[in-house]
Amino acid sequence: MRVALVGGGVIGGGWAGRLVEHGIDVAVFDPAAEAESRLAATLANAERAWARLTLAPRTRGSVTFAGTLAEAVAGADLVQESTPEDEQLKLRVLAEIDAHAPSGALVCSSTSGLLPTRLQADMRHPERFVVGHPFNPVYLLPLVEVCAGASTSAQTVARACSFYESIGMRPLIVRQEIDGFVADRLLEALWREALWLVRDGVATTGEIDDAISFGAGLRWAQMGTFLTYRIAGGTLGMRHFMAQFGPTLQWPWSKLTDVPELTDELLDTICSQSDEQAGGLTVRELERIRDDNLVAILQALRSCDWGAGAVLAEHERRLFERAPAAGVTDPAAPLRLTEVVVDPAWVDYNGHLTEGRYGEVLAYGTDGFLRHAGLDAAYLDGGHSFYTVETHIRYLGEVGALEPLAVETQVLGADGNRLHLFHTLVHARTGAVLATGEHVLLHVDTVAGRSCPMLDPLASGVAAAAVAHAGLPVPEGAGRSIGLT
Amino acid sequence: MRVALVGGGVIGGGWAGRLVEHGIDVAVFDPAAEAESRLAATLANAERAWARLTLAPRTRGSVTFAGTLAEAVAGADLVQESTPEDEQLKLRVLAEIDAHAPSGALVCSSTSGLLPTRLQADMRHPERFVVGHPFNPVYLLPLVEVCAGASTSAQTVARACSFYESIGMRPLIVRQEIDGFVADRLLEALWREALWLVRDGVATTGEIDDAISFGAGLRWAQMGTFLTYRIAGGTLGMRHFMAQFGPTLQWPWSKLTDVPELTDELLDTICSQSDEQAGGLTVRELERIRDDNLVAILQALRSCDWGAGAVLAEHERRLFERAPAAGVTDPAAPLRLTEVVVDPAWVDYNGHLTEGRYGEVLAYGTDGFLRHAGLDAAYLDGGHSFYTVETHIRYLGEVGALEPLAVETQVLGADGNRLHLFHTLVHARTGAVLATGEHVLLHVDTVAGRSCPMLDPLASGVAAAAVAHAGLPVPEGAGRSIGLT
Repeated sequence: MRVALVGGGVIGGGWAGRLVEHGIDVAVFDPAAEAESRLAATLANAERAWARLTLAPRTRGSVTFAGTLAEAVAGADLVQESTPEDEQLKLRVLAEIDAHAPSGALVCSSTSGLLPTRLQADMRHPERFVVGHPFNPVYLLPLVEVCAGASTSAQTVARACSFYESIGMRPLIVRQEIDGFVADRLLEALWREALWLVRDGVATTGEIDDAISFGAGLRWAQMGTFLTYRIAGGTLGMRHFMAQFGPTLQWPWSKLTDVPELTDELLDTICSQSDEQAGGLTVRELERIRDDNLVAILQALRSCDWGAGAVLAEHERRLFERAPAAGVTDPAAPLRLTEVVVDPAWVDYNGHLTEGRYGEVLAYGTDGFLRHAGLDAAYLDGGHSFYTVETHIRYLGEVGALEPLAVETQVLGADGNRLHLFHTLVHARTGAVLATGEHVLLHVDTVAGRSCPMLDPLASGVAAAAVAHAGLPVPEGAGRSIGLT
Repeated sequence: MRVALVGGGVIGGGWAGRLVEHGIDVAVFDPAAEAESRLAATLANAERAWARLTLAPRTRGSVTFAGTLAEAVAGADLVQESTPEDEQLKLRVLAEIDAHAPSGALVCSSTSGLLPTRLQADMRHPERFVVGHPFNPVYLLPLVEVCAGASTSAQTVARACSFYESIGMRPLIVRQEIDGFVADRLLEALWREALWLVRDGVATTGEIDDAISFGAGLRWAQMGTFLTYRIAGGTLGMRHFMAQFGPTLQWPWSKLTDVPELTDELLDTICSQSDEQAGGLTVRELERIRDDNLVAILQALRSCDWGAGAVLAEHERRLFERAPAAGVTDPAAPLRLTEVVVDPAWVDYNGHLTEGRYGEVLAYGTDGFLRHAGLDAAYLDGGHSFYTVETHIRYLGEVGALEPLAVETQVLGADGNRLHLFHTLVHARTGAVLATGEHVLLHVDTVAGRSCPMLDPLASGVAAAAVAHAGLPVPEGAGRSIGLT
């Protein structure tokens, strides 16, 4: 597969990134002086993103810059045009592509909203032309709107969709050719309203962005407006929602004025399409899917310390600070300090907690013990911490999503700068033993990067637990080596 | 802290969920017959979501239903009104709350867009009234719009913001009182446009939702439209973007008609607010933040097998199927089959790969070996798999975000249904040894739930590797037990 890109700006460069990451050789034509350096930066972003996005095997394609459009498209199986949104310019460029591309090549335009029937007007082979409208960053967002013009063949649409799918995209066939297609209709309405808000001094650009990304934007990453509102209708679903919020359509809740009349026919259309879209899932089921998605998105953003995830991280810091010390009933028994529910995202295709997540839950147990013993934010800020140096995990039982887990911790030993813990991971309700984890930790000066003795209050906390546990029997499985015998 | 909720529907119930999860006792007044059962379902959703959202310590609050509004608000520190969007109804309810709530209590309305100055008109103490407009599901989405009416005191706004922050929310103060506030202005514009698209038969509700959640919706979960477009302007930023897409404001890209004139003054306002919002980050830096966020969101949704994440999962399955067998240069040396880059989301506050993630990367090494030996989707579909039963990890070196890792695998032993692997995790460029992992796996019949002999082609693949590795020396660290000595 060879692809020619005509135009190598933000969109063309994004295409190049996605294609190269999928082993496709790309020829680029872009007469701009800075085209090569700009494209190199985008390719670097795409490489970085895909290296982290997936472990799936991929080969790398190459990028060559052509001196002329004709040279770029010669030998191409598909040409993707991404020049500025100027109809006259695109007409000229597409006619030139048509004249020089091999007869079997598809010709696609990245236009955000110009009509394909008009764009293909000057082509000799308009049947091979179709709009393939991607979204920035093209190398990450899966959506591509595929819109045929009057002269586009059905085969062209099918071939374009199949190609876009092969590079990880999600084609959406736009069935009726309109300015702005579907997505940019929606984006443009929101954008124009946002411009009014700035113009009228109601909110700043930053406030408007916050109004999206801390609220509805989190929902939109996983469900569109109709499915979201279906759920908001509660168990009564879409018709109830429309009855409740239909009247607000007449209220001045948008600076933009034209409003469709909510006829019975339109209501029936919306409700029956919404039923079909829900695919038999009840609102209660949809609610849980939505919540699972939102939890996963919030945790993802927390790992980036950004937006709604940064709010969550800050909130958690406060909750940890505010929490009273754990009430330990019997210091001479293993300490049960950490409880956690199996996140559905932690299970594998067999429906069981994955190997890596057993380790993570046991590490939560270590965190819980260290917090209990006196390791807090102030201690960490002072430049000291514990690093785990060795772990021995035995996987003794399976556990599925949403089951409650608890970690029970016994101190097997401690000296000035080392700590030897034995965790037992149990089902919090049944008490079934699911795993054991034996861990050796080293106390370190994180600035100097070397081991050093524990300081108070942590030193006293660890010593107290070690003394309290000194009389406990060594747990079954501790000190074992691993092997087939 | 005691909170009274007047109205216990989708929004009131969502408030109850968030409050109870933060240890706050809630009194609810809702005269609907099904109010209690509906609220119980929402509380269950909130409990499930928060159990998985965070390990941070929280206590649980209680919910009681009051027979009258007066009884519910008696003794409350804050009253949150969440009745239907009916101004006359809200005026009556708010006046009644005002009459019965303690004099120090805040009175907040969840209205989506009615004007606070009008809502507080019939209150005797309007200074304690403010809008606190949340977003569904209230227990998960952090945004709450805080909008004062003409009679609202500054202290009321400050107290409301402080309270909402204490339960993990992100208050956005709406500085100018307008219908729909900020967020619903934006949502309503998009919603009205979506209704036009359905009415005109351009797209179904499902297609419109797909146009959001596979594209712009993923961006909106982490950045709003202005910051997104600033980045789309490339290194030239916001002014360049406005110059490029300003003209499209005159195009028929929305069914809604009114468009603000892009005067020099408005352009200056947008660009300077956008500069401020970017906080000194360059477009290149913002691009990488955006990409990190999008990667994390896509991975989060992949773990839920939903939306854009389901597209990614399906794409990965195809990539794995399509991949040629790994080229093994020397079968009698440890196999280097798995390479991976440290995701920034995998590092802790010290900037190093977390303990749990070492285990996960080593598990990727096991996956890589098993794929190499013949474990594919067909084998798994046949009801057979390998489970890890024991793991011994030694953490030997630290590694930071974006560093390349490789796993080298030596087969220490195999019999009919067991496999003993030794992984060495190295820095893929420097070769530095970062960890070792010794693993024992059991081959299982996943349907019967018990161990059974491996089948071909896996059995032959494992046997061939075991024979090839039989002459290799036992690696340093293998077979060791764990402890302080």
